[in-house]
Amino acid sequence: MSTNKKPNILLVNDDGIAAPGLLALYNSLKDVADITIVAPDGEQSATGHSITLDSMLSVSEHYYNDKFFGIALKGTPADCVKFAISEIYKKPPDMVISGINLGSNTGYNVHYSGTVSAGAEGALMGIPSVAISITTYVDANFKPAGQFIKSAINKIYSKGLPLGTMLNVNVPNVKNSSEIKGIKITEQGQTRWKEIFYKRKDPKNRTYYWMTGEKMIFKESDLKDESAVNDNYISITPIQLDMTDYKNIETIKNLNLTKK
Amino acid sequence: MSTNKKPNILLVNDDGIAAPGLLALYNSLKDVADITIVAPDGEQSATGHSITLDSMLSVSEHYYNDKFFGIALKGTPADCVKFAISEIYKKPPDMVISGINLGSNTGYNVHYSGTVSAGAEGALMGIPSVAISITTYVDANFKPAGQFIKSAINKIYSKGLPLGTMLNVNVPNVKNSSEIKGIKITEQGQTRWKEIFYKRKDPKNRTYYWMTGEKMIFKESDLKDESAVNDNYISITPIQLDMTDYKNIETIKNLNLTKK
Repeated sequence: MSTNKKPNILLVNDDGIAAPGLLALYNSLKDVADITIVAPDGEQSATGHSITLDSMLSVSEHYYNDKFFGIALKGTPADCVKFAISEIYKKPPDMVISGINLGSNTGYNVHYSGTVSAGAEGALMGIPSVAISITTYVDANFKPAGQFIKSAINKIYSKGLPLGTMLNVNVPNVKNSSEIKGIKITEQGQTRWKEIFYKRKDPKNRTYYWMTGEKMIFKESDLKDESAVNDNYISITPIQLDMTDYKNIETIKNLNLTKK
Repeated sequence: MSTNKKPNILLVNDDGIAAPGLLALYNSLKDVADITIVAPDGEQSATGHSITLDSMLSVSEHYYNDKFFGIALKGTPADCVKFAISEIYKKPPDMVISGINLGSNTGYNVHYSGTVSAGAEGALMGIPSVAISITTYVDANFKPAGQFIKSAINKIYSKGLPLGTMLNVNVPNVKNSSEIKGIKITEQGQTRWKEIFYKRKDPKNRTYYWMTGEKMIFKESDLKDESAVNDNYISITPIQLDMTDYKNIETIKNLNLTKK
């Protein structure tokens, strides 16, 4: 890979093409990369790594300030990556960057994250990919995340990432960039949501439910993703797509499942 | 855990509550387990680990031969597991089993699989969980899969599974059980789908796309999931929910992303 030319970068997200985090990501990279944007036409949070096989995908052009901004796809984040690589690029982009997502993606929550899954989709195709999220849903200051990703892309572009590995980045939401204490390479922790189901009646008196949840944060090593962002560090977790539990293969063999 | 009483098992799937694979799973376990069924009210394949936060979840009772069979939820496989654990069980079930899915879930395709994600959801909650799939979409013979899972549940019930680990089982579709050569503990391979986008026009002459794909099978070690099922072995892959790429942490550190 050459570092003389600007990298070609595909931007995607799960908050939808009109989300301010995507615009912030674009603004932070537009001078240092050749950018293509394909993003869902609306909110696709918590879609995980879902793909659309049983219905059509409609596409439209999205404009920002009367200027073409990107392609809006009526599909999931992973659909967007597949569509861009298959139908827009002649050769794959140098990088896929997904975000900037509102709401952190730490711990087990990475499994539900459309943001992470778009990065995973890039990595599945052998493209260095990064998912980036910020730890708030409101009053976001995207500047530290933008500064980080701008400084990171050339390092990633010049050295690449291991095949089948992506980076899951979480950035604390702070008023001033100076509040960020530093950047840590972290491990995925066990943070997850505890479900709460609201039980309600519809106008015909039939029961329905609405799921919400509260984040369960555990006391963990400061090398874990959630601990790092809570301590105002930017957290970078290398995520692998090979989910084989190699360390427990002997334990599983000892269950004797292979014998009748 | 005691092996004197029957295990309480939650059955779920992604092909929908009326799918024959779920009925086959129920029939193979009904005499050896206390079964509760919560499944999507329709097809939810390729939904990955998505969850429904932005809309309501309606529920209905599903009957088979005039007998109550289970709860049909207008949601994803992961929603079903969350709903069952939160709203139906007083204490968590002893096991979650997801399937029997039509179509194998091998290689990178585990990331898209609603079947696997339902098992993953169980494992996230600390419940021993198994996803089971069969390598065909038509003319399925569920008998070998049913025999396998029936023989496996007591072994899993008595010894448990490592926390955060689930089993992803793929069963070859054969006419006679005797064609199955054996059972292997395998690793997730790199099998994936290559996308094909059909480009079409709607009645108003607007372009839309329909995504399909063809399976890319690579020549891999016979310890990989896809190789094993192709060679008529039942494949059991232990899957871990901690996606941290520990083996490449030093490589990622050497990118100097933590320095300005």
